[in-house]
Amino acid sequence: MNEWWVDVNRSINFDEALTFPVRENDIFAVGELLVDMMSEMYDDNITNTSYRKLFGGSPSNIAMNATSLGIHANIASAVGEDAFGTFLVDKLQIAGIDTGCVQRNDYSTSMVVVTKSRSTPIPIFYRGADYQLMYTKVIEEALLNSKIVHFSCWPISMAPARQTIEKMIAIAKENQILIGFDPNYHPLIWQRGEEGLQYIKSMLKNVDIVKPSEVDAERLFGKDTYENQIEKFLELGVKLVIMTLGKDGAIVSNGQNTLRFDSLASEVVDTTGAGDAFWSGFYTAIVQGYTVKEALSLGFAVSAYKLQHTGAVIELPRLEVIKQLYSL
Amino acid sequence: MNEWWVDVNRSINFDEALTFPVRENDIFAVGELLVDMMSEMYDDNITNTSYRKLFGGSPSNIAMNATSLGIHANIASAVGEDAFGTFLVDKLQIAGIDTGCVQRNDYSTSMVVVTKSRSTPIPIFYRGADYQLMYTKVIEEALLNSKIVHFSCWPISMAPARQTIEKMIAIAKENQILIGFDPNYHPLIWQRGEEGLQYIKSMLKNVDIVKPSEVDAERLFGKDTYENQIEKFLELGVKLVIMTLGKDGAIVSNGQNTLRFDSLASEVVDTTGAGDAFWSGFYTAIVQGYTVKEALSLGFAVSAYKLQHTGAVIELPRLEVIKQLYSL
Repeated sequence: MNEWWVDVNRSINFDEALTFPVRENDIFAVGELLVDMMSEMYDDNITNTSYRKLFGGSPSNIAMNATSLGIHANIASAVGEDAFGTFLVDKLQIAGIDTGCVQRNDYSTSMVVVTKSRSTPIPIFYRGADYQLMYTKVIEEALLNSKIVHFSCWPISMAPARQTIEKMIAIAKENQILIGFDPNYHPLIWQRGEEGLQYIKSMLKNVDIVKPSEVDAERLFGKDTYENQIEKFLELGVKLVIMTLGKDGAIVSNGQNTLRFDSLASEVVDTTGAGDAFWSGFYTAIVQGYTVKEALSLGFAVSAYKLQHTGAVIELPRLEVIKQLYSL
Repeated sequence: MNEWWVDVNRSINFDEALTFPVRENDIFAVGELLVDMMSEMYDDNITNTSYRKLFGGSPSNIAMNATSLGIHANIASAVGEDAFGTFLVDKLQIAGIDTGCVQRNDYSTSMVVVTKSRSTPIPIFYRGADYQLMYTKVIEEALLNSKIVHFSCWPISMAPARQTIEKMIAIAKENQILIGFDPNYHPLIWQRGEEGLQYIKSMLKNVDIVKPSEVDAERLFGKDTYENQIEKFLELGVKLVIMTLGKDGAIVSNGQNTLRFDSLASEVVDTTGAGDAFWSGFYTAIVQGYTVKEALSLGFAVSAYKLQHTGAVIELPRLEVIKQLYSL
């Protein structure tokens, strides 16, 4: 039994399950809860005027997915005291997720506008309420009652949310809470006038698990081979690096062994939220006692399932159903 | 002949036409060019997910309307280097409006989200590119070639756009350019931590014409009678105060005489943009040599015409057509 939480310095072994203290929140997702405003049609700016308001934000998607898959997820976020904030809180509540750590403030609820394009769609970011996430007693209590804490680049990109995350990481380290981080750096979300890459690199020493895509790694470290990119994350202190390669699957390393995973996706309908689906499946599996290697496979299975459906948050079955569907 | 532009201190008389130097831009509208993201349906947050992207921003609407009514309008604004910015620039160009003073920057194009409500709809403001409007040589040249300059509260609410407006006002005063200002103060657009009302009051001395609604006046001066509110604007240095009273028409004062205008609207389908429609009709008429009183009537006629149609910017006929329609 790999009681990594007793010795935070030991590595994460592929063939062992992680064990967790008994705590109410299997996963505590922290960061952006926002509206994805998606265009209904492609390209042409003048006649394409219809948009659809969707629930979004990577950690929020993970909380929703993990709930569907069968574990207990909590979310810490900040939204505005406006119609969008109410929409998002309502969605969480309908899904049965506790919204006690969702703060309301007098900034506009953050939003990402995505206009579909035949080429790469370029999002327009509207950041408001999300980065006003404050560290509160309520959040601290929820954190201390969590097995895993997960966050993305959004909350660390701007103050005061950054300070909230820093305090949470410190508490997590002291209390054997597994720390997952999505290094989805984008220059357009980062505080102006600051070198975000340096900050991200400096905080990786506190992170247990990262899941960079090729693009994420290249933004952080420049162009290099997968092997070298993985090595850079490991050298900075990360214990498990899950490098996703799109249709080519993924390479995962714990610093001692490297595993290659082929994509399980037979059909790709929509790639939105595929990474969040992976995280959800992976976290659900490790919480449920699967080995790390099994959990990785189950994560990729959930991602493959999501790829067959449109939308960032789809109706996922329980993890056992996914396991059977993909014969794992 | 009231050559007010020769003596900027003299008052604006109702029974005289204003005369203007020969200049290419009849009106130079300055300020927000943005996306109005309007919900398609009413109220319910969860099922009402469809929105429509519309051209918006009060000065931009005025430029569009004035062009339709038959005068030459120019617009100074800032939008992002994103799909929304391109959409707005395209719309202006299709309308035949010069976009040489529309700046592109790396902020997100500003947007206002309006979710229809059975009660008062509360807009969500997303300010980005608009308040980055810079004072440039191109803008200065366009300004010096203008008869009227018009701006709203948006650009003065935040730096650096505020400094751009201050420079433009100084140039306008020196060059006999008529200055129209829409005191549409809203606390949610104003720079945090600053008392916007004081700033607005301090700048009214430089303004020739204002068109406050009852709500605008109340936000600035607190609750009071129409007469007292008008007096306050006049005391602060405004030459013509057009106080709109919704369905009850308007009261207009130049400090010597006060005129009452009944609403010309026989049917109200949509009030969006009715104020902008008034400004457009009024400016068009004064540029075309109507007396101030006639121009006010024509402004209210354009507003009444707009009220019968849905949308902030509708297809307006030439001013002469409106004049005939309303037997003016």
